[in-house]
Amino acid sequence: GHTRIDHHRALRTGLPEVIYAQGKSSAQTAEIFARMAAAGTDVLATRASEEIAEAVLAAVPAAVYHPQARAVTLKQSADKAREGHVAVVCAGTSDLTAAEEAAVTAELFHAQVTRLYDVGVAGLHRLLAVREQLADADVVIVCAGMEGALPSVVGGLVGVPVIAVPTSVGYGASFDGAAALLGMLNSCSPNVVVVNIDNGFGAAYTATMIARMAHRKRE
Amino acid sequence: GHTRIDHHRALRTGLPEVIYAQGKSSAQTAEIFARMAAAGTDVLATRASEEIAEAVLAAVPAAVYHPQARAVTLKQSADKAREGHVAVVCAGTSDLTAAEEAAVTAELFHAQVTRLYDVGVAGLHRLLAVREQLADADVVIVCAGMEGALPSVVGGLVGVPVIAVPTSVGYGASFDGAAALLGMLNSCSPNVVVVNIDNGFGAAYTATMIARMAHRKRE
Amino acid sequence: GHTRIDHHRALRTGLPEVIYAQGKSSAQTAEIFARMAAAGTDVLATRASEEIAEAVLAAVPAAVYHPQARAVTLKQSADKAREGHVAVVCAGTSDLTAAEEAAVTAELFHAQVTRLYDVGVAGLHRLLAVREQLADADVVIVCAGMEGALPSVVGGLVGVPVIAVPTSVGYGASFDGAAALLGMLNSCSPNVVVVNIDNGFGAAYTATMIARMAHRKRE
Amino acid sequence: GHTRIDHHRALRTGLPEVIYAQGKSSAQTAEIFARMAAAGTDVLATRASEEIAEAVLAAVPAAVYHPQARAVTLKQSADKAREGHVAVVCAGTSDLTAAEEAAVTAELFHAQVTRLYDVGVAGLHRLLAVREQLADADVVIVCAGMEGALPSVVGGLVGVPVIAVPTSVGYGASFDGAAALLGMLNSCSPNVVVVNIDNGFGAAYTATMIARMAHRKRE
Amino acid sequence: GHTRIDHHRALRTGLPEVIYAQGKSSAQTAEIFARMAAAGTDVLATRASEEIAEAVLAAVPAAVYHPQARAVTLKQSADKAREGHVAVVCAGTSDLTAAEEAAVTAELFHAQVTRLYDVGVAGLHRLLAVREQLADADVVIVCAGMEGALPSVVGGLVGVPVIAVPTSVGYGASFDGAAALLGMLNSCSPNVVVVNIDNGFGAAYTATMIARMAHRKRE
Amino acid sequence: GHTRIDHHRALRTGLPEVIYAQGKSSAQTAEIFARMAAAGTDVLATRASEEIAEAVLAAVPAAVYHPQARAVTLKQSADKAREGHVAVVCAGTSDLTAAEEAAVTAELFHAQVTRLYDVGVAGLHRLLAVREQLADADVVIVCAGMEGALPSVVGGLVGVPVIAVPTSVGYGASFDGAAALLGMLNSCSPNVVVVNIDNGFGAAYTATMIARMAHRKRE
Amino acid sequence: GHTRIDHHRALRTGLPEVIYAQGKSSAQTAEIFARMAAAGTDVLATRASEEIAEAVLAAVPAAVYHPQARAVTLKQSADKAREGHVAVVCAGTSDLTAAEEAAVTAELFHAQVTRLYDVGVAGLHRLLAVREQLADADVVIVCAGMEGALPSVVGGLVGVPVIAVPTSVGYGASFDGAAALLGMLNSCSPNVVVVNIDNGFGAAYTATMIARMAHRKRE
Amino acid sequence: GHTRIDHHRALRTGLPEVIYAQGKSSAQTAEIFARMAAAGTDVLATRASEEIAEAVLAAVPAAVYHPQARAVTLKQSADKAREGHVAVVCAGTSDLTAAEEAAVTAELFHAQVTRLYDVGVAGLHRLLAVREQLADADVVIVCAGMEGALPSVVGGLVGVPVIAVPTSVGYGASFDGAAALLGMLNSCSPNVVVVNIDNGFGAAYTATMIARMAHRKRE
Ligand SMILES: Nc1ncnc2c1ncn2[C@@H]1O[C@H](COP(=O)(O)O)[C@@H](O)[C@H]1O
Ligand SMILES: Nc1ncnc2c1ncn2[C@@H]1O[C@H](COP(=O)(O)O)[C@@H](O)[C@H]1O
Ligand SMILES: Nc1ncnc2c1ncn2[C@@H]1O[C@H](COP(=O)(O)O)[C@@H](O)[C@H]1O
Ligand SMILES: Nc1ncnc2c1ncn2[C@@H]1O[C@H](COP(=O)(O)O)[C@@H](O)[C@H]1O
Ligand SMILES: [Mg+2]
Ligand SMILES: [Mg+2]
Ligand SMILES: [Mg+2]
Ligand SMILES: [Mg+2]
Ligand SMILES: [Mg+2]
Ligand SMILES: [Mg+2]
Ligand SMILES: [Mg+2]
Ligand SMILES: [Mg+2]
Repeated sequence: GHTRIDHHRALRTGLPEVIYAQGKSSAQTAEIFARMAAAGTDVLATRASEEIAEAVLAAVPAAVYHPQARAVTLKQSADKAREGHVAVVCAGTSDLTAAEEAAVTAELFHAQVTRLYDVGVAGLHRLLAVREQLADADVVIVCAGMEGALPSVVGGLVGVPVIAVPTSVGYGASFDGAAALLGMLNSCSPNVVVVNIDNGFGAAYTATMIARMAHRKRE
Repeated sequence: GHTRIDHHRALRTGLPEVIYAQGKSSAQTAEIFARMAAAGTDVLATRASEEIAEAVLAAVPAAVYHPQARAVTLKQSADKAREGHVAVVCAGTSDLTAAEEAAVTAELFHAQVTRLYDVGVAGLHRLLAVREQLADADVVIVCAGMEGALPSVVGGLVGVPVIAVPTSVGYGASFDGAAALLGMLNSCSPNVVVVNIDNGFGAAYTATMIARMAHRKRE
Repeated sequence: GHTRIDHHRALRTGLPEVIYAQGKSSAQTAEIFARMAAAGTDVLATRASEEIAEAVLAAVPAAVYHPQARAVTLKQSADKAREGHVAVVCAGTSDLTAAEEAAVTAELFHAQVTRLYDVGVAGLHRLLAVREQLADADVVIVCAGMEGALPSVVGGLVGVPVIAVPTSVGYGASFDGAAALLGMLNSCSPNVVVVNIDNGFGAAYTATMIARMAHRKRE
Repeated sequence: GHTRIDHHRALRTGLPEVIYAQGKSSAQTAEIFARMAAAGTDVLATRASEEIAEAVLAAVPAAVYHPQARAVTLKQSADKAREGHVAVVCAGTSDLTAAEEAAVTAELFHAQVTRLYDVGVAGLHRLLAVREQLADADVVIVCAGMEGALPSVVGGLVGVPVIAVPTSVGYGASFDGAAALLGMLNSCSPNVVVVNIDNGFGAAYTATMIARMAHRKRE
Repeated sequence: GHTRIDHHRALRTGLPEVIYAQGKSSAQTAEIFARMAAAGTDVLATRASEEIAEAVLAAVPAAVYHPQARAVTLKQSADKAREGHVAVVCAGTSDLTAAEEAAVTAELFHAQVTRLYDVGVAGLHRLLAVREQLADADVVIVCAGMEGALPSVVGGLVGVPVIAVPTSVGYGASFDGAAALLGMLNSCSPNVVVVNIDNGFGAAYTATMIARMAHRKRE
Repeated sequence: GHTRIDHHRALRTGLPEVIYAQGKSSAQTAEIFARMAAAGTDVLATRASEEIAEAVLAAVPAAVYHPQARAVTLKQSADKAREGHVAVVCAGTSDLTAAEEAAVTAELFHAQVTRLYDVGVAGLHRLLAVREQLADADVVIVCAGMEGALPSVVGGLVGVPVIAVPTSVGYGASFDGAAALLGMLNSCSPNVVVVNIDNGFGAAYTATMIARMAHRKRE
Repeated sequence: GHTRIDHHRALRTGLPEVIYAQGKSSAQTAEIFARMAAAGTDVLATRASEEIAEAVLAAVPAAVYHPQARAVTLKQSADKAREGHVAVVCAGTSDLTAAEEAAVTAELFHAQVTRLYDVGVAGLHRLLAVREQLADADVVIVCAGMEGALPSVVGGLVGVPVIAVPTSVGYGASFDGAAALLGMLNSCSPNVVVVNIDNGFGAAYTATMIARMAHRKRE
Repeated sequence: GHTRIDHHRALRTGLPEVIYAQGKSSAQTAEIFARMAAAGTDVLATRASEEIAEAVLAAVPAAVYHPQARAVTLKQSADKAREGHVAVVCAGTSDLTAAEEAAVTAELFHAQVTRLYDVGVAGLHRLLAVREQLADADVVIVCAGMEGALPSVVGGLVGVPVIAVPTSVGYGASFDGAAALLGMLNSCSPNVVVVNIDNGFGAAYTATMIARMAHRKRE
């Protein structure tokens, strides 16, 4: 009664609906996950606590929990070549939650993912050292908390879209990620677009769409 | 002395540097515009008042002023086929400034542009009536003020990235576009990414990068 | 000593006073509930934790706890025909707390209630599928978190007042419901009025007043 | 090209579309007004400056400008009995703009309107003196700036819905009406619902819908 | 080492220094309390948790804990006639913490205190019923959360200063008392002054100074 | 029609109603001023522009305009001894508008006023130099913009109530006086109470009430 | 009467008092400037409009107006060798007002100043190109608007203090410099300290103190 | 994989990289700490909970935990004379966490540290009593919560830079330190620069750089 799964989203948008587990009970999440699994598609639940993950895995044993990403995935589609290339960059070790949410999402949706972590702007040589790996990507996801300066710097180095993910890493005047969010919205690099604080999932969803276009063009 | 034009940005990123005219004097803007024009590339100045535009056109007579978009352009590149397809959607007549800034930018950067204006969510049939035109686009830019609900609805209808531009249209609790910005950042459609309030330019810059990938794939 | 129950509110306003349990101790809430029960009217306590509910039910065994709605009700008035028709709509499964608070309140106050849940704007066909049920209502309550776009869309589809309830569902830039609140206040549908974040109770209280007028007119 | 008038809104919602003149040019507003006038319905343009009003009256000489309300109206429907009764209350002389926008709107839409002005809570006897007139209304619109306390007090006196309009009257920590808005959203009177700052129009639109129901019941 | 008690504050200001226990450890608070007790004056510690209170009472057995007020007091001064009259008014049962902090403070500082609780503006007759008791006070402290309207109404009824204490009672758009605070700062009653959210202590400290002046005049 | 003067406020509260001229037209203000003048009391209009002042003086030639205070006064009461002593302190030359509004108001209401200007905390010796004059006052009004630190320092030096007036003096992160307002609300001197930004009038109104009590006691 | 110049500040702090011209009249500013000039020290007035500057120059013909910096200076001290070295860096041409205010202030106070302008992070090679000039400075002032990322990057490149000046350059979600301010406060480079938005003056005042120490050490 | 230690920061900036422990697991922190210890430098981890500290000390037994400062340090450099003099001042006992974080950091980095605690502005004589000790410092760190007034007062007394650390001490309208932060940014003492809320570490890092310059000059 309480849930209407949007089964035909895949038809409209090319990617399946995804479960937002936060604010749902373990039982509710497991039930929705199982119904979507029964439909035969790949399934993703985001922002899943360990307790929710356990309930899902009890209901759908083939599912996998990614604790750093707080995500549960179920891979049911056939293996195929990676469609496009997404780089996931983050500023510091504390941004791993958002970065891994992005990486796990993009991998489930068939993108090739390169992780470039702990390359914050206070030690610029670390970013310059991975410049060639950046140049390979069709789209770059950049996760950063505190002042959120990294997307602007990356945006100036690459010729592809940069999707900026502000993270809630920081304290005091970071206001739980609001400082990073504002910084990214005001980026002076014009190829920077922004998603919600800690929304690695949304960044990867859109990045996958873009990478796929880039990939298909190469064929 | 005061300005260092980033001439090799086009090499790094595939698109030229662009002049942000607001907060510059007419003389400063005209001088920078002329120097970039002399370099032989296409030139774009955004957020240009009528007064600034006059100074630019006096210095570079081949430039064109687009008053609704507050933009000055100079086309110097050879004509070529449009590279990819960008739809520019807006919610109401009052959002035209941002929408036209986006459209003029995308056209200068060789994208094909379809304008779909005044299709706000309070009269949904207007949006549903242009659904086929939407389906054609490689990427959709959606400009909306007030509650900023339109990108979520568009995002659910299409299978391509949606770049949301909150506009400063509204009054009171719109807080000069902050309400629309927050709404778009919290979109439940996961293919929605966001740029700054009234930043039609940045939306179009990124959209052009995406559309170009999509276009090349079709060839 | 500490509490002055407003017993003659029912005379002034047609509906009884209601207990706001949050910030009261279990003992205080149970005592007030019992005094109102003794007065012979219907009684409602909102925002009641499980612990408070237990104390109330110990004092007034005929009371009923609605855990999803966090409400305790006591029905003492005679059964009569439903007076008017309230539709309660919500965007996602996570908005159920506010929606159920509204539904339970409206039912206690003699309205007929239709629940239309999980019809968020990212999958518009779900809302269009319940359009006829919406058309039947005298007033519509719409609960939504995140971007809070649903009331604007519903407002454009119906010819009756829409009472929008922003919910605290979301994270990051949802700012605990502030984003949804601002969106709803700026709705471009002019038949949308707004109550506090998560205030399903207030929405239902006012909706009941409106529905009753509509009902009586039909007789 | 730039405007799609929602002509069938009246069919869907019972009341015609309304022109939001702010942010439109005089020419645009006059053109839209004239097209709607040609359709034979009543027409309303809100937030119209004197300059816009002149352009509209030049195009449609039968239109009327209400300067205190900043509204232009055109009455084309046949005269009929007033449908329901709306009281418009305001706290101080400075709140007249919002109050008159509400009153003019409600009158155009066939409601009977009673104006009760300058009855702020700092001199309570003024409000108590008009208590009987309040008791007659089917719905009450209350406009107040500064601390926005008036709707709570009115809400406790009447048994009908109160639509609260925060106004931008005040200075300093009124933050252009935000203080009044927040106060009204937190009203401890549960029959208070809220619209945007200075949105007398939206309050009257919804009030008219409610009053019409009440009116028809009386017949 | 870490604390310099301001022992000569009483000389400068007529009232002793007071311990702000929040953010201090139990040991620190007890030590400071004991040192001040040893100086022979009355002692007050505010915002003391139960745990802190226990440590203080262990060190100074003559001290008294007031749990609803979260205050620990030690009375060492000689009994004397009450100096002036402070009324403490609150809007609802949930505001008791701030109200009792005020009442306990004023009593320790020799004022006569009248408690007038649960007289919120949604049921105005309750306030009007205690009007005579209000008229007796030399100064009135008004504690209210949610919309914070009560001080404006009280301010219009009395001819003495009103000290408004916004409380953190409420949810959603009350923003932990910010809505009430803003309302009170914008009061249209010009005899209303304001202190920090939940600062019953500061209100009573100043009220006591005022009441003492009024009292001495009567002699 | 539009204005109900609260003539019996003086009976209730001991001080007459005051006209808030901002947001009123010159004609409206002059008319209200004249009606109150005709009643024979002292009259005060605050926040009056030069244009409004001219209209008032045309209607009531005995009125006086105080441009630095933006106030118009009319003295009609008999001369009598000053009732109590108010010190008005300000931090810098730019705070004079608020300080003079306070001083003019207090003088009209029969208080003795001592002005102590430009004694900001960055040069503490200036404040210490006027310490004796401070010690004489029954109540102190302190106006300060920027960081708003002065009331805390003054509060620690005197044994009477301090009414803090945050001013809109400053730029950037002063946010039009919000920084000073917040600082004053968090004062660690417990005898500091606060009014709205730039509200010298309200501070003086309350200060006059307090000073009068202090004065009468001395007799 | 209205102004107490802090003449002995130079004794206490080593640098003279400075006039904050904003919010003062031309006459007031000129009078204070002349009195300080008469005392024989160097004089600086900041945030001076052209109109104010004219009044000052009329009173003190030896003074100089710096329009880009909005500053008036009077040099009366003997020439001496520059004491320490301050680099002033800015992100874009639009940040010149703050940067020049800093440069003019530091030069008046005897520092050697190197200007490094338009080196924003979106084109990193421009900053890397001036790295050697940066390495020479004893302290670096960095002015940047929009996302305010530049101080973090500079902070990671140098081994001296960086004083960050957020500027009000930008639009929309820059919120008049608040975004840049928050970014700088959250800098992950630990040698970054921050001053108010557009406060080039304060940055230079402190930088001069630091540079002087560094300079003297070299001797 | 997840962490790239910036080992050559000491070369670039003269001070080693520091571990930000918050948001890292105990295992991650201990591992990074051990790797840095192995490099032979001094090591500092800030914002370390007791649990994290235990893990670090288990891995590196020579490390020391400072619970009040929430810091873990490892001293490996040779002892040498203190380089420069830093005073650490705080307003109240509750500000000790930030003050001790600053003091421990400065001591590890070879500065001489003088602690001057509990000298808030409400009892000014306490600050004036330590004036001579203040005069000795090369740079002053001032930690204060609530209204954050102390840095302005200190700034007016000394001729060296003041680094202001707003603390999260307070409640209600302190908004977790935002009030103190805003106050400090608007300081009317021009030698005040600011760091993030509770960022004693950053203040000490920069202070050490400054003190070292001052120290070397004295040699
Ligand atoms: N982490 C996330 N952040 C934002 N949106 C999400 C997230 N995970 C899932 N969603 C979206 O939330 C919607 C599902 O919401 P619900 O019906 O409440 O489960 C889907 O449309 C998803 O695209
Ligand atoms: N003063 C107003 N405040 C809010 N909404 C309004 C106002 N006036 C008209 N509207 C709404 O704005 C929409 C028209 O917007 P537009 O297409 O930009 O003219 C209509 O749906 C009206 O209901
Ligand atoms: N509840 C309270 N709210 C605000 N200030 C307080 C409170 N309790 C004590 N104070 C003040 O805090 C100061 C003591 O702070 P501390 O030195 O940290 O103990 C004293 O000057 C008191 O006046
Ligand atoms: N400068 C002021 N700031 C705040 N309130 C004021 C001011 N001047 C007058 N008032 C109050 O505003 C009320 C008059 O408002 P109105 O009816 O709009 O003229 C009176 O109760 C005055 O006490
Ligand atoms: Mg790192
Ligand atoms: Mg339209
Ligand atoms: Mg769903
Ligand atoms: Mg009035
Ligand atoms: Mg109650
Ligand atoms: Mg001064
Ligand atoms: Mg540039
Ligand atoms: Mg203390």
